[in-house]
Amino acid sequence: MPKTRSVAVLVGSLRKASYNRKMALALAKLAPDTLKLGIVEIGDLPLYNEDVETAGAPAAWVQFRGEVKAADALLFVTPEYNRSVPGGLKNAIDVGSRPYGSSVFGGKPGAVVSVSPGAIGGYGANHHLRQSMVFLDVPTMQQPEAYIGGAATLFDEQGGIVSETTRGLLTKFMQAFAAWVEANAKG
Amino acid sequence: MPKTRSVAVLVGSLRKASYNRKMALALAKLAPDTLKLGIVEIGDLPLYNEDVETAGAPAAWVQFRGEVKAADALLFVTPEYNRSVPGGLKNAIDVGSRPYGSSVFGGKPGAVVSVSPGAIGGYGANHHLRQSMVFLDVPTMQQPEAYIGGAATLFDEQGGIVSETTRGLLTKFMQAFAAWVEANAKG
Amino acid sequence: MPKTRSVAVLVGSLRKASYNRKMALALAKLAPDTLKLGIVEIGDLPLYNEDVETAGAPAAWVQFRGEVKAADALLFVTPEYNRSVPGGLKNAIDVGSRPYGSSVFGGKPGAVVSVSPGAIGGYGANHHLRQSMVFLDVPTMQQPEAYIGGAATLFDEQGGIVSETTRGLLTKFMQAFAAWVEANAKG
Amino acid sequence: MPKTRSVAVLVGSLRKASYNRKMALALAKLAPDTLKLGIVEIGDLPLYNEDVETAGAPAAWVQFRGEVKAADALLFVTPEYNRSVPGGLKNAIDVGSRPYGSSVFGGKPGAVVSVSPGAIGGYGANHHLRQSMVFLDVPTMQQPEAYIGGAATLFDEQGGIVSETTRGLLTKFMQAFAAWVEANAKG
Repeated sequence: MPKTRSVAVLVGSLRKASYNRKMALALAKLAPDTLKLGIVEIGDLPLYNEDVETAGAPAAWVQFRGEVKAADALLFVTPEYNRSVPGGLKNAIDVGSRPYGSSVFGGKPGAVVSVSPGAIGGYGANHHLRQSMVFLDVPTMQQPEAYIGGAATLFDEQGGIVSETTRGLLTKFMQAFAAWVEANAKG
Repeated sequence: MPKTRSVAVLVGSLRKASYNRKMALALAKLAPDTLKLGIVEIGDLPLYNEDVETAGAPAAWVQFRGEVKAADALLFVTPEYNRSVPGGLKNAIDVGSRPYGSSVFGGKPGAVVSVSPGAIGGYGANHHLRQSMVFLDVPTMQQPEAYIGGAATLFDEQGGIVSETTRGLLTKFMQAFAAWVEANAKG
Repeated sequence: MPKTRSVAVLVGSLRKASYNRKMALALAKLAPDTLKLGIVEIGDLPLYNEDVETAGAPAAWVQFRGEVKAADALLFVTPEYNRSVPGGLKNAIDVGSRPYGSSVFGGKPGAVVSVSPGAIGGYGANHHLRQSMVFLDVPTMQQPEAYIGGAATLFDEQGGIVSETTRGLLTKFMQAFAAWVEANAKG
Repeated sequence: MPKTRSVAVLVGSLRKASYNRKMALALAKLAPDTLKLGIVEIGDLPLYNEDVETAGAPAAWVQFRGEVKAADALLFVTPEYNRSVPGGLKNAIDVGSRPYGSSVFGGKPGAVVSVSPGAIGGYGANHHLRQSMVFLDVPTMQQPEAYIGGAATLFDEQGGIVSETTRGLLTKFMQAFAAWVEANAKG
């Protein structure tokens, strides 16, 4: 029987009512029992600056790094800002990747979901993020891909996924991710 | 005779002794007289969050937007973090692009220089940044490209470019940029 | 009064009934009078191979290079194959870029339209192509972008664009392109 | 004890004396005994065209698809052409991905090595190729990355790697790839 695996979820939008935060919560419910998802907050992380590191890492960095390090796997749920990854999410990635030699991401299996109001579903953010995952040595699930458009009509008032088709796709995504994590997790 | 054009320079690293900041200062000296370069600081910008915008844009956002808006052109000088644009620089781009319909970047001619300690010269950051410039309607100079490696030995103690070859290339880069700005600037 | 400018149109799909070929023909009709679009065929180009060049460039390469060279501007109309540019179109770009120092693309203003059956509209092909245009020194129009999804229902039997909204967007695209060509064409 | 695994090697340059072909042959010698590398030729593949598929797939397509299908894993060794994947290699990928539903790539573990004469080591080709691998469901090894510059001085007359450092890096790359294949291969 597979172990239960903890998944650090990084949400790319900082809005309280963010579609991507809603998606993260919905995915937590759709996931198989072997995955335990928890959002790791990124909104209070000071911008990465090596001088600040040298002077002493801020408490918010230390806490973020610790929470990611403790997880078995990574799930990114993100909008696209200006055809790329939101600065806040990229900053979290930069913070977690440092100091040199102490990245908290390396070797943890990962997956990417991108959500946008328009039709394109955050394609650019999704792939720019994947390029960073190459460097960070995060084996990232290739299929199914998840570019989710039409964000404004995705959720009901309880945060459930309205469309049965979309719910089915996301359920399969999380099942595939569970298998991916099981195959690639360390220990 | 061409007008003098002001260039807002965004530096992707926040370190005081950053190679990219040194490069920005060196480029200011190598530029033709028609370009007046000035660094617009991005290190104190709170992470972009639409809720914060709605509650009232922070002073740092307002100042940043004003300084970019006042410029005729844009120059990005950036390292590569994790095979992409540093989070701090991407955050500045996100801040400047908002609120919806009020981007301060649109139509200003731009150029990208990427600098890294290794051989690759920030190629990934350079091109991810260019993808954002498509959305932001910044006509971006294509050639010459500037991927500058070997950052640790680029500068002398006064911040000058040690290698005559590199100095020549950067001088040509700034001349080409001046022509690009002249051809594409508004007004 | 602006000159009439010839535009070499490269179509990324080789199918006779290709949506992208239909789009190219539709764009030719929607374009302002100052742009004269003509498809340059790429389907018979042997794969680029420097050994073949050295032995003597095939007639198809020579003709292709001549036709592109004669044009004032470039328009790419392409589907996405496997999240990138179709091999046939990329091969045409490689052929036209060679031999070293004799690229037929350099300095010609360009634009990209991507068309796909699904919702995403060829986003990945569009941006990978733009990355090549940086190297080839093709100043590429940034806005409006054209990611056209739902290809199967775009055209009527005469090849016209069914949706008035889409027709309006494409008309504006071609007007913007005419202005871009006028601003950036040589001579 | 791990099984012996066959690796289909796709070389992105068609030149006989191609640096990338030399690299492919050198990697075959440096690989652990559990990996058996064989180059699958791509130079005679007609450009992908769905009309041609419908009329009857050319023999070269059939053979290529068969050879890739028979392999347990994939290794891409490629130069960068115009900041992206060479058209010939992308065409091979397109051919192998079709007809719809019959891709020969899906699920086979893969890796990418890029080789260029300059310093940048084919970074752009490497990452554009990786984006296609997402769609093709090829779990692609993230680390170590292999951007190999300075191609002209890499090889001795027998095709060996001159630099001990580079030879060591490539040996580790192939060992990591063997482990990646073992962890991700089917059956």
